[in-house]
Amino acid sequence: MTELILSGACGQMGRAVAALAAAREDCQVAAGIDRRHFPGAPFPIFPSPEQYDGPNGVLVDFSHPDLCQGLLALARERRLPAVICTTGLREEQIGAIHEAASEIPIFFSANMSLGVNLLRELCKRAAQVLGGEYDIEIIERHHNQKLDAPSGTALMLADALAGELSPAPQYVYDRHSRRMKRPKNEIGIHSVRGGTIVGEHEVLFCGEDEVITLSHSASSKRVFAAGALRAAIFLQDRAPGLYDMGDLV
Amino acid sequence: MTELILSGACGQMGRAVAALAAAREDCQVAAGIDRRHFPGAPFPIFPSPEQYDGPNGVLVDFSHPDLCQGLLALARERRLPAVICTTGLREEQIGAIHEAASEIPIFFSANMSLGVNLLRELCKRAAQVLGGEYDIEIIERHHNQKLDAPSGTALMLADALAGELSPAPQYVYDRHSRRMKRPKNEIGIHSVRGGTIVGEHEVLFCGEDEVITLSHSASSKRVFAAGALRAAIFLQDRAPGLYDMGDLV
Amino acid sequence: MTELILSGACGQMGRAVAALAAAREDCQVAAGIDRRHFPGAPFPIFPSPEQYDGPNGVLVDFSHPDLCQGLLALARERRLPAVICTTGLREEQIGAIHEAASEIPIFFSANMSLGVNLLRELCKRAAQVLGGEYDIEIIERHHNQKLDAPSGTALMLADALAGELSPAPQYVYDRHSRRMKRPKNEIGIHSVRGGTIVGEHEVLFCGEDEVITLSHSASSKRVFAAGALRAAIFLQDRAPGLYDMGDLV
Amino acid sequence: MTELILSGACGQMGRAVAALAAAREDCQVAAGIDRRHFPGAPFPIFPSPEQYDGPNGVLVDFSHPDLCQGLLALARERRLPAVICTTGLREEQIGAIHEAASEIPIFFSANMSLGVNLLRELCKRAAQVLGGEYDIEIIERHHNQKLDAPSGTALMLADALAGELSPAPQYVYDRHSRRMKRPKNEIGIHSVRGGTIVGEHEVLFCGEDEVITLSHSASSKRVFAAGALRAAIFLQDRAPGLYDMGDLV
Repeated sequence: MTELILSGACGQMGRAVAALAAAREDCQVAAGIDRRHFPGAPFPIFPSPEQYDGPNGVLVDFSHPDLCQGLLALARERRLPAVICTTGLREEQIGAIHEAASEIPIFFSANMSLGVNLLRELCKRAAQVLGGEYDIEIIERHHNQKLDAPSGTALMLADALAGELSPAPQYVYDRHSRRMKRPKNEIGIHSVRGGTIVGEHEVLFCGEDEVITLSHSASSKRVFAAGALRAAIFLQDRAPGLYDMGDLV
Repeated sequence: MTELILSGACGQMGRAVAALAAAREDCQVAAGIDRRHFPGAPFPIFPSPEQYDGPNGVLVDFSHPDLCQGLLALARERRLPAVICTTGLREEQIGAIHEAASEIPIFFSANMSLGVNLLRELCKRAAQVLGGEYDIEIIERHHNQKLDAPSGTALMLADALAGELSPAPQYVYDRHSRRMKRPKNEIGIHSVRGGTIVGEHEVLFCGEDEVITLSHSASSKRVFAAGALRAAIFLQDRAPGLYDMGDLV
Repeated sequence: MTELILSGACGQMGRAVAALAAAREDCQVAAGIDRRHFPGAPFPIFPSPEQYDGPNGVLVDFSHPDLCQGLLALARERRLPAVICTTGLREEQIGAIHEAASEIPIFFSANMSLGVNLLRELCKRAAQVLGGEYDIEIIERHHNQKLDAPSGTALMLADALAGELSPAPQYVYDRHSRRMKRPKNEIGIHSVRGGTIVGEHEVLFCGEDEVITLSHSASSKRVFAAGALRAAIFLQDRAPGLYDMGDLV
Repeated sequence: MTELILSGACGQMGRAVAALAAAREDCQVAAGIDRRHFPGAPFPIFPSPEQYDGPNGVLVDFSHPDLCQGLLALARERRLPAVICTTGLREEQIGAIHEAASEIPIFFSANMSLGVNLLRELCKRAAQVLGGEYDIEIIERHHNQKLDAPSGTALMLADALAGELSPAPQYVYDRHSRRMKRPKNEIGIHSVRGGTIVGEHEVLFCGEDEVITLSHSASSKRVFAAGALRAAIFLQDRAPGLYDMGDLV
């Protein structure tokens, strides 16, 4: 049984983690950390890392970059494994994570979805085998409120593919503006936007009369909560060090 | 039984039409017109429209724009229905087609595939119903030797959709160069290029928690030959006038 | 502005309708009917149709078959248009709906999703055009907790297609048990089950070197709430009679 | 430069290999073996393995099981590497291949497509990572003339997946005949048949709010010819032994 200390317990992701944990038998939330109120929470909630006075467990953080230093101090003092899922961390915070990893096990990944990280690994493998001869294209689909294009995950996949290709490919976002055959040495990246699509990524390897397609589709942000739970269970008895989704895949 | 006079009988498309006709019981090639030689052709081949001396039938043209005037003259003189499938016609040739259509039935369509033309009609219907509220995106996929992007068919579909929407949408080919939510009033058009893909067109209507997708995939150019045969059979007993795939769908 | 009376206001679907209505400017929930409590509801809730004492409006029902008679009585007395979205009605209840429709406008559909009903219409159109010559296959995908296969919606689509085909096709669910070429006269229906997939339906029309695919994907049950709102707005000023999604599409 | 001896040179697959080799600079057909005639063949053709009197090279066989013994005898005598692509071999012929592999390098695979074999490897990897918790489903699509269902390749993929799962899963072909939730321990296999689809295989891993899909689509049988060429180039300087597509991937 893995005991969890849930930072950001009252946020959207914190509640998703709590709900998933409640449905599993191998882990449970022992306590939360959050300034906010979570009506009917079946565990105690402490307002900040500094005021935390609950039991030990694996720290799972879906809060805010500002809490990062306080959480790392708590984890080091209590020797708690920590799964950091907060995004948008600044460089000095990432530095502090690396430093803390010499004392405690820390899990830290750009994307907490197990599926996306598996897709990344499979794409790398496919690029190794098909690389120079197959044309690679990425299509990502997201809701119409998303500001950036392409998605961070699409770029992560493109970079992983590029790392297996030589010479390094160009990323191409618009073919409308040119009139030419497709050069071998490029990856087309297409950003479809519409409705409320949560997130889909599709990688095509197009060869002579065959196409291999590897894709991932998420229908809610719960996949990140599920990834965090897996990470916590994985991290429980590890030696100090920095781990990521690549270790889980 | 529809008798066909096949112009361009020895070309890639002409041979495809002849092969398809041979497998059907409701039509047959009575004669061909082509400068070239077709070894073992089971029908007589005449070198030009001017030298044509074979039986009457429905003229099916997969030759070259330069033959257009001669073919129209032959059709008018003999009062033959004509299916014009040659692409790249100049404006005066298109004008001559319209003129001839006052005397004979002529079938003339930008894309001879029945499937693509059905897709076009279904897209228009979907836009009428979902129009203002659903985001529309088009993804087309073609081989890596294709020079232009987007495909002519993708533009034909976009124009058909735009005709049902008010205000008229902007076509967007690249979202990478901006940072904003998707405006309601646009159609994203994405040109995937890779391998030997013959041609795929996918139209998405993305709404609140649902996506409707209408797509067409061609695996060879035979679909255009099949469309021409259908057109010829349809045209056989029609009154003079100009017909297109919309009449067949 | 369409005023709504929401029966089943405190259930999952009722809350979804209320949330969607709150985000629109052309309709609002004026009152609810529910035995249960909805904390912080921004409208009065009456415990039963018999006790309803609120303003007039379009009745939208996502409650339980047992309330059907009471709701119809209320609607007839007050001359309220009524959108009946409750499923699992018995024959005598459906009879009562038909009877009430002689006095008031009633909207009643097997599937309240606009997208699915549009898909149904497009499938019928495609079958009319491609009918005898293209092989039709249906693939539906749902979560692993679903008991029945195929889905009711897949059967609804198959029946709509069959209505356009002659002779009537056989439905085939298993090809593993036979060894033969595909007969023309069948529709293959495939029930994929896995994970938490909300609902996907894909209809293929497979011809000579081309495939037309029409599909619908739902990512939450909110699509039914959205369909109910559309129906209510549509129904507001109609003459007495029975309407369904076909009238909206 | 790899020199090829092409057995079955005048068949559909033999011609495809010859055409692909002609377009490459790293291999060429030095001679053929075939009873039949290949008009204009740019290499000598010998009527049988016993009468072969051409240069040495890598033997590539797309002929008939009956020639297997003669080809192996030729290969052993001349010490030629051999790529055996003929399907439908009997057990004693497969035994003879294994025996010959102690003296010469032999490449022998159930499916010669590089893409399908890569798909197989990626599926195994995904099953290792996601195995017990994700529901696996296979959808294969083939033309309406195919007699068997599921396809041999679908079964090959299912067997590869099953090898990574414990307990071993049941294969399920028809859910229409039962009324129950999907058991964890099964793989659904769906055989879509229609039109002229050459061959598509799609493997789904369905989890909590996410789906990973790995798929392969072939648009002609040339992919098998391309796989044979790769195998021949790979095999050229190998030690005696039995190799398969797993060594190429």
